[in-house]
Amino acid sequence: MPLHPEQSAVTVLGLGPMGRALAGAFLEAGLRTTVWNRTPGRDGALVARGAVSARTAEEAVAASSLTVVCVLNYDAADSVLRSDAVADALKGRTVVNLTADIPDRARATAAWAAEHGVRYLDGAIMTPPTTIGTPDAVFIHSGPEDLYQEHRPVLEALGGTHTHLGEEIGRAAAYDVALLDIFWTAMTGYAHALAVARAEGVTARELAPFAQGIGAILPPIFGEVAEEVDAGSFSGETNPLTSAASSMAHIVHASEAHGIDAGVMRAAEGLARRAIGQGHGADGFTRITELLGRR
Amino acid sequence: MPLHPEQSAVTVLGLGPMGRALAGAFLEAGLRTTVWNRTPGRDGALVARGAVSARTAEEAVAASSLTVVCVLNYDAADSVLRSDAVADALKGRTVVNLTADIPDRARATAAWAAEHGVRYLDGAIMTPPTTIGTPDAVFIHSGPEDLYQEHRPVLEALGGTHTHLGEEIGRAAAYDVALLDIFWTAMTGYAHALAVARAEGVTARELAPFAQGIGAILPPIFGEVAEEVDAGSFSGETNPLTSAASSMAHIVHASEAHGIDAGVMRAAEGLARRAIGQGHGADGFTRITELLGRR
Repeated sequence: MPLHPEQSAVTVLGLGPMGRALAGAFLEAGLRTTVWNRTPGRDGALVARGAVSARTAEEAVAASSLTVVCVLNYDAADSVLRSDAVADALKGRTVVNLTADIPDRARATAAWAAEHGVRYLDGAIMTPPTTIGTPDAVFIHSGPEDLYQEHRPVLEALGGTHTHLGEEIGRAAAYDVALLDIFWTAMTGYAHALAVARAEGVTARELAPFAQGIGAILPPIFGEVAEEVDAGSFSGETNPLTSAASSMAHIVHASEAHGIDAGVMRAAEGLARRAIGQGHGADGFTRITELLGRR
Repeated sequence: MPLHPEQSAVTVLGLGPMGRALAGAFLEAGLRTTVWNRTPGRDGALVARGAVSARTAEEAVAASSLTVVCVLNYDAADSVLRSDAVADALKGRTVVNLTADIPDRARATAAWAAEHGVRYLDGAIMTPPTTIGTPDAVFIHSGPEDLYQEHRPVLEALGGTHTHLGEEIGRAAAYDVALLDIFWTAMTGYAHALAVARAEGVTARELAPFAQGIGAILPPIFGEVAEEVDAGSFSGETNPLTSAASSMAHIVHASEAHGIDAGVMRAAEGLARRAIGQGHGADGFTRITELLGRR
């Protein structure tokens, strides 16, 4: 849909790989895009494409009604946003903070924003910088619904899918942390598997097609067990915890026989053994979710 | 292709969920299928479908030129195969051991088989019992190529794809251990993520579609980093180890703030921090593969 004139300008604070991708997508969409980064010299390619380079963060946020922030973490975001000059310049304007951090930091920033008359939305980007501006990008947002709807046309210039998860400001960060938990745990498993495979004379390229097959079976399993976890019933009929623990022990054994640290799998096996010790050996593996968290 | 008359009979030892699925697929394909399980009473449904129930393991293996073994682990397999009576009955016949365990156990079983005149192939099943007999099943095999080709028509009655990984008998188990490493680490990450999400008021069903999105981005990433890992060069341009460690710290923090054990992620973060401490912070995450294993 065409953008309203007031929606035709946007500011991006933070020009790491993701910030540069966001600014590039806004430029591509024809928005007047102002950029700023704490360390200078990151905006050359963006300026060549038409971006306005601000000398200070306060000048940057004053240039647009909407500022998108994407820096390393909320410590970095706070150190930019919470100066008097920037807070003054942001009064009555909107910040969409796409920086990744924990839900409580999003809540604290929302409280700060409310005190300073800054309109605030929190969000997270679930896909790599290369997806920005393409249909593959995935954005999640939380905060006031009306504020989200107001800025949605500009946010959608970033491409991909945008989901508003609810008004509770910490919700996007909660999803982000949970999803990154899955991603980084899985990546650790893959890196470890490649080390074990190499010790057995199997190259990464040989293992990769089969590893991709394992990756492909995860989404349907994720869907199936979600129902069980919500219901608190864990069918282990075809794959009980005792089998899982047995597999995990094989992996630890094969890894350590080659002198490869199996600390991650030892910790995972420990969870399975604890659930078995509590009498749940015939349940499915996701029974460990109950052990980890209280209902 | 039509089976040769000598290929029309097969024995299945072990009637857990996977063994029952294997025997069911053989029956479905019209093979004369003899079954046996240490604990009796597991073969009722199979016998109703036409399976022959053997009273002893030696009687079972004597009924067919090919015996497929699928039990909990090689301790269980050895306790069946290595009795004098079974070894005698197996002389000149073929065992395909689809039991999961570590590569060294496959090698030890192959050595035992050679001493006793038993023809031996090792293998592993990479997909759940429900896939057996369908195109989704994935089997990997290792051992003598000619022996594999001889029994391939019967094995292919199990459906899915069958890959002969090489003559070295431990190779299927090596792939199996590495692939299960990925699977169980990822499942642990998912179970943990569901516990963190629940503590934040997000249900498994709410998180699942996004978790499935994370699952979907893993296969292409697995392919890309495999090239890097084999080459020993780890581009961290868009996602350096320092960013990964920062994300992992968020996850640990958010988890422990809710009293949820973050031992698995702490172990994973420890690997990232060690690689950073060795001066590799600007490299990509799979640099930890080098830290885990020696070239």
